[in-house]
Amino acid sequence: MRTLGIVCLLAAAAAAPAQTPKNNSPTSPETHPDRKVTFRVRAPKATEVTLTADWQANGVQTMTKDDAGVWSVTVGPLEPGAAIYNFNIDGVAVPDPVNPRIKLRARTSASIVEVPGDGTELWNPGTVPHGRVELVYVPSKAALPGQTREVRVYTPPGYDKDAAHKYPVLYLFHGSNDTAAGWTDVGRANFILDNLIAQKKAVPMVVVMPFGHALPFGGPGDNTKVFEQFLLDDVMPTVEKTYRTAPGRENRAIVGLSMGGGQALTIGLSHLDLFSHVGAFSSAIPGDFSTRFKALLDDPVGTNAKLKVLFIACGKQDGAFARSQQLDKTLTAHKIDHTFYPTEGLHNFAVWRQYLGQVAPMLFRDAGK
Amino acid sequence: MRTLGIVCLLAAAAAAPAQTPKNNSPTSPETHPDRKVTFRVRAPKATEVTLTADWQANGVQTMTKDDAGVWSVTVGPLEPGAAIYNFNIDGVAVPDPVNPRIKLRARTSASIVEVPGDGTELWNPGTVPHGRVELVYVPSKAALPGQTREVRVYTPPGYDKDAAHKYPVLYLFHGSNDTAAGWTDVGRANFILDNLIAQKKAVPMVVVMPFGHALPFGGPGDNTKVFEQFLLDDVMPTVEKTYRTAPGRENRAIVGLSMGGGQALTIGLSHLDLFSHVGAFSSAIPGDFSTRFKALLDDPVGTNAKLKVLFIACGKQDGAFARSQQLDKTLTAHKIDHTFYPTEGLHNFAVWRQYLGQVAPMLFRDAGK
Repeated sequence: MRTLGIVCLLAAAAAAPAQTPKNNSPTSPETHPDRKVTFRVRAPKATEVTLTADWQANGVQTMTKDDAGVWSVTVGPLEPGAAIYNFNIDGVAVPDPVNPRIKLRARTSASIVEVPGDGTELWNPGTVPHGRVELVYVPSKAALPGQTREVRVYTPPGYDKDAAHKYPVLYLFHGSNDTAAGWTDVGRANFILDNLIAQKKAVPMVVVMPFGHALPFGGPGDNTKVFEQFLLDDVMPTVEKTYRTAPGRENRAIVGLSMGGGQALTIGLSHLDLFSHVGAFSSAIPGDFSTRFKALLDDPVGTNAKLKVLFIACGKQDGAFARSQQLDKTLTAHKIDHTFYPTEGLHNFAVWRQYLGQVAPMLFRDAGK
Repeated sequence: MRTLGIVCLLAAAAAAPAQTPKNNSPTSPETHPDRKVTFRVRAPKATEVTLTADWQANGVQTMTKDDAGVWSVTVGPLEPGAAIYNFNIDGVAVPDPVNPRIKLRARTSASIVEVPGDGTELWNPGTVPHGRVELVYVPSKAALPGQTREVRVYTPPGYDKDAAHKYPVLYLFHGSNDTAAGWTDVGRANFILDNLIAQKKAVPMVVVMPFGHALPFGGPGDNTKVFEQFLLDDVMPTVEKTYRTAPGRENRAIVGLSMGGGQALTIGLSHLDLFSHVGAFSSAIPGDFSTRFKALLDDPVGTNAKLKVLFIACGKQDGAFARSQQLDKTLTAHKIDHTFYPTEGLHNFAVWRQYLGQVAPMLFRDAGK
């Protein structure tokens, strides 16, 4: 019996018994007490149904059909956390038809299964004070003419109470084919920050999460360039006008995962006049890193004076690991201070939640001193 | 060429050309200039694929397969606005596999196609100042022990600027199998309010949108009763502590659609000590309305003095129309002041956006006078 504070945005799925509801579709996913999970889909006419999973390197599992036409597979035990999956029904990749927890994407969609832990995880809302996640509408001037984009902003607990306090800002970017909602809906960045702040392991900060696909996903053009312009010209001025943000580079961090890690490195290291903390999780790394940032690499004293934190993390089983490892070597060779944080793990929110919990306490430790 | 401010949370789908992207799946939906819409899904092995649509009374359309295994159908022209649809692939109801605009539900999910209008619609973000939508985490004491629920709260433009101003509050409820996100993600309640406020047709107000399935969707128990307790004991105190809300019944409205309309009527009319404005769109209406609210019906002078607005709206082609019509007759027979607003339309967000635009200007006109 769990007595922890559990966020039940969609209590139906979490609490549903393993029975066939009115619409004749089975319960899916069903998480068992041993953290094994059963996935089911009713597709009586299908000839082949598989499960695509983000929690294993070769993420395709065969499913088997019962007499009622319900395909199922039981996997795990899974690690506590959020896992993402799809079904492939006779060649059509679809989210779980009955699971309301949907992973929104820039194109397509998937399903989420949340495997409970023991309640002590940072991403668990627990009983600590909660900040808010705010949907802010940012009109673009030049980067995306005529467009208004939704940006998610986390304000920490107590933001309303002390009207004199100014907060440092973490700009936090999602990966390819994700959305501005990813870091909160799946990453639970807000609860991770709530817990770290309650434990006094991180300073209260505002976290800004824009939509990283400035240009249409999968289309032509230099997305990072347009995204940088939108960030610098539209998002940052709106944030600094709307929220009580502490001014100056020492109060700004820029961190991202995968594609967003590449954006954080590219934009952050190009603008040490604006940012003093840079982080990249499981990151895309510019192929021309050494030439693009030659001036920074060749001036370790100057760079280290400006760059308070440079955090590189990646799972050892992630296809992106070699590039992170190479970046670590390049930085080391040039005596650039940084933290390389390799862990067990793949390219998924299991490690990204962990990395946010690791880097957030490192941010803004000197600010205001 | 559209020059209006368009919210592109997910620009990929909106801007994608009608071509086959890398993953070999077709573009869907494709909205044509004449507001006809083509839906496509690649399912070469399927024997029957249909489109389920919320914009027509008999909402199932046959789709036809081409040589590449892509099923398609072109419908419309559709009215400007948001329409919701699913595919049924050999008996499996799924959202559109490639459309990132997902209608989140309490169970299952669907897809959204947004058909542009001429830009003058209230739900269009346009170039007016925008309020924010905030995700507030509300722990429950007695109604839902141990649970914390996400509640969406709209704060109007300028909320941060005048620290002395206190705002009236509209509690706005979604329908069955919807979520706390429905009224903003699909209903665009925030933009409707932004526009009405900019046009000085509505007073600036805070809008509170909780998750109406207090108990698991489809499960046993008296959901309205538990939801009422959660609303009164947990949501309202949190809102009044967190936001600068004007006190007293004259500054509170309670409005909902479908199941949420039933909740607004049941809770609102039972608590005229707390609410002075009640609205029900395309509403579920308690079967025992006349006996449950006998005291109110039998005291029109007293009831009319307390009830500043009682707004009942429904589409004439909606299966729920007869019940709204009957409620109108009952109220008229008992001389209870109210507005009955029948329109053309079905049970969908096309009418609900319209009804919010109609009722919001009626709210809080006397407050503070």
